[in-house]
Amino acid sequence: MNAYDRLAARFARIATLGEASSVLNWDAATMMPRGGAPARGDQLAVLAGISHSLLTAPVVGDDLAAAEAEGESDMWRAANLRLMRHAHTRATAMPSELVEAQARANSACEKVWREARRQSDFVMVRPHLEHVVRLMREAAAALSPALGLAPYDALMDGHQRGMRSADVAAVFAEYETFLGWALPQAEERQARKPQPRRPEHPFPIAIQEALCHRLAERLGLDFAHARLDRSAHPFTGGTPSDVRITSRYVETDFTQAVLALVHETGHALYERGLPERWARQPVGEAAGMATHESQSLIVEMQACRSDAFLGWLGPELHTAFGGDPAPYRPDNLARLWRRVERGFIRVDADEMTYPAHVILRFRLEQALVAGALTVADLPGAWNDGFRALLGMSPPDDARGCLQDIHWYDGAFGYFPSYTLGAMAAAQLMAAARREVADLDPGLGRGDLSPLLAWLRAKVHGQGSLLEFNALLGEATGKPLDPTDFQVHLTARYLN
Amino acid sequence: MNAYDRLAARFARIATLGEASSVLNWDAATMMPRGGAPARGDQLAVLAGISHSLLTAPVVGDDLAAAEAEGESDMWRAANLRLMRHAHTRATAMPSELVEAQARANSACEKVWREARRQSDFVMVRPHLEHVVRLMREAAAALSPALGLAPYDALMDGHQRGMRSADVAAVFAEYETFLGWALPQAEERQARKPQPRRPEHPFPIAIQEALCHRLAERLGLDFAHARLDRSAHPFTGGTPSDVRITSRYVETDFTQAVLALVHETGHALYERGLPERWARQPVGEAAGMATHESQSLIVEMQACRSDAFLGWLGPELHTAFGGDPAPYRPDNLARLWRRVERGFIRVDADEMTYPAHVILRFRLEQALVAGALTVADLPGAWNDGFRALLGMSPPDDARGCLQDIHWYDGAFGYFPSYTLGAMAAAQLMAAARREVADLDPGLGRGDLSPLLAWLRAKVHGQGSLLEFNALLGEATGKPLDPTDFQVHLTARYLN
Repeated sequence: MNAYDRLAARFARIATLGEASSVLNWDAATMMPRGGAPARGDQLAVLAGISHSLLTAPVVGDDLAAAEAEGESDMWRAANLRLMRHAHTRATAMPSELVEAQARANSACEKVWREARRQSDFVMVRPHLEHVVRLMREAAAALSPALGLAPYDALMDGHQRGMRSADVAAVFAEYETFLGWALPQAEERQARKPQPRRPEHPFPIAIQEALCHRLAERLGLDFAHARLDRSAHPFTGGTPSDVRITSRYVETDFTQAVLALVHETGHALYERGLPERWARQPVGEAAGMATHESQSLIVEMQACRSDAFLGWLGPELHTAFGGDPAPYRPDNLARLWRRVERGFIRVDADEMTYPAHVILRFRLEQALVAGALTVADLPGAWNDGFRALLGMSPPDDARGCLQDIHWYDGAFGYFPSYTLGAMAAAQLMAAARREVADLDPGLGRGDLSPLLAWLRAKVHGQGSLLEFNALLGEATGKPLDPTDFQVHLTARYLN
Repeated sequence: MNAYDRLAARFARIATLGEASSVLNWDAATMMPRGGAPARGDQLAVLAGISHSLLTAPVVGDDLAAAEAEGESDMWRAANLRLMRHAHTRATAMPSELVEAQARANSACEKVWREARRQSDFVMVRPHLEHVVRLMREAAAALSPALGLAPYDALMDGHQRGMRSADVAAVFAEYETFLGWALPQAEERQARKPQPRRPEHPFPIAIQEALCHRLAERLGLDFAHARLDRSAHPFTGGTPSDVRITSRYVETDFTQAVLALVHETGHALYERGLPERWARQPVGEAAGMATHESQSLIVEMQACRSDAFLGWLGPELHTAFGGDPAPYRPDNLARLWRRVERGFIRVDADEMTYPAHVILRFRLEQALVAGALTVADLPGAWNDGFRALLGMSPPDDARGCLQDIHWYDGAFGYFPSYTLGAMAAAQLMAAARREVADLDPGLGRGDLSPLLAWLRAKVHGQGSLLEFNALLGEATGKPLDPTDFQVHLTARYLN
């Protein structure tokens, strides 16, 4: 075996261990009895430790140098080798004591955060968050020189490779300007329209679940390689050949079950469409969290909330639940599910105000990484920033800086992915509409396959061959450009 | 860290990987979509390979020698060290090419066997089984000198440590004599009794499943540390703090669901009762397959099919399913569930004829290991042996030598565990009855806790401290003695 082949075998082994961890994580969120939690933590820690050893072994450095010297003429192999180098560099840059200290601190902080959020008591969790932030800054300082990136960019690179804060800041500033005039107009226009009517509940959960199953299948998910289950927070897990999505159900409203389902199906279709030829190699993986979110949002926001798709979905929903058909008419569903409303909670936000929530977090976490903002000052800075963006002040920290798990679990540099994904989804949809004649007629038949075929070719099948902007460039003719997202919002909320 | 502590840390790591594999195996049998099978095979193979490397690393031999030289005065630590040595010896005795060749051959043979059994076509699977047997004989030859055991005993030792074929053969010969006179008598006595009445179906599966859940809880299983699911073949998996049992359901009869449930609950209670102090150490594990089977059978056969327990269970079943109460009366349930009947299929056999099925396999697999029987001659030898034991000839190989997965999947030396477990269950029950005054009154209240407390002390909490016969000796005052089993059968079927 030559150096490249040895590396490919090693990375396949690492990926296979990652699959095992992914199934164990899915199980922990869906199946595991609560008494299994401590042992599960140990199982995942042992697997992570073994993967880390495989990735950082000195022989990997030697093989990388040898393979790089040999050179790779094939584009995919060359990209694969660069990604192996990148993963090795990230892993070796971090002292293993720091990795372990972070794992412990994040886990301890996250536990206290759950109670602090319940009681809206920031002081309770503050010392834990201070510890998490201190270690996060150490990690950023360790990664920064190894990657040749600014500390915050080094963290963001861990979630979406190739993304830089300067680019993100410019895009976000442009959006802030747009929101400043567009949001009041959208609100005013919405106020002039009739109020949406809610379908009559109850919606039996077994019927919701069967409907979600049929809907995921209709969107293109093959249940010979997938499962749908329930969890407290919907997510997509598993592996490309065995992808596992979840939703959640309440009897009084099917909205959250159906919208979570189509969102997670978007993630799942991406995993299912990754290039099999490069399975278990870095270049065969999904291209980062912003790209992943673009695939969930193109299905949820672009396709499934379109007039065309709602025209198909409304009668389907009415057939499932019965009762008065009027609330299921597409124009009413559109008013129900495409409603602009300023609120304090990110996960409840509509697609127009959602970026404001992300912009706030992006700015605050940059300041935390730079040391320009202390944890003690976070609640005040949050509330000031929120008022500046959306004109209201959170009434308490539970609806302010305590609402999201991310920082309390040590994830910094992740938040931008949500909005970069939303923007990329709009940009990809605009390009797909230009190129795929049957796209909207398909949506009107509840048929995503014309869109899906295009995404398979342009995004899913590309794996991690290209970085975020290059992928968008190949697919749409330009790097990330927030204009398409603004055009989408203008068409949907202002015309 | 001294040598012992280094070994303890390493074996804890190996055990934790084993837990991960156990959950992945459970998932494969209960949850996994069929398209996930190839990737799951890879995940389990990678985990097995890593565990094997951890177990066979040269440093383990050095540390074992150092720890043995230091000596251990604590009984548990000394036993733990002996078990580490044993595991290391077994693992290093087998060339890794042979391990891999067996994994491939067993998997290939098992696949063909499924089809061969469906078609009752032994010739179809014969070359595959020949390959499996050839490799099994190589393995026995490799293990034999390393363990200082005869080749067949070296295989049996892999399933129930400390068991020797000479002892098993003596016990089985005694049982064969007993069966020769007892079975006709039992059949004759049964023929004089009224036929049992079957409760009226259907038995809705949701009601069966809820009943099974309540029943497992009633028997002592804590669902904060357990799950109950469905699978094609009932089994117990998971880990001691997160044990997972399955059952299977048909709408026309609840018998198999309920009896599988109580059987698997017996296995699960054993895992739950293992000594926490020694979790993830060899001495903290269950003491082999015969011991495990003794714990499932003491719950299923000894406790739950007793008159006392049926007196409690009958009304419970009737409350769950309704209809005519007569078939739920304890005497009718006893006639239904304690019926002697000669048949060709081991897994359908009653407790009196079951050992005959095992005795046949024990003799045939010894001959296969010794090379005294060829695979080509297996069907004929099976049919001759079956007739000698139970007086009938299987009409085809599907009801003969093709019925069990074990050999086709490479498992030789396992079958005796079933009957050794049944005998040990009777012996333990007899001792428990002598020592626990409230045992039968408890069963009459549907309360296993008096029996369970005794088992916790005498069996579960002992982990692998003692070998099979020593464990029985401490618990019952004598090593394995088939008399108690014969007394039990005589009382139940002949008086």
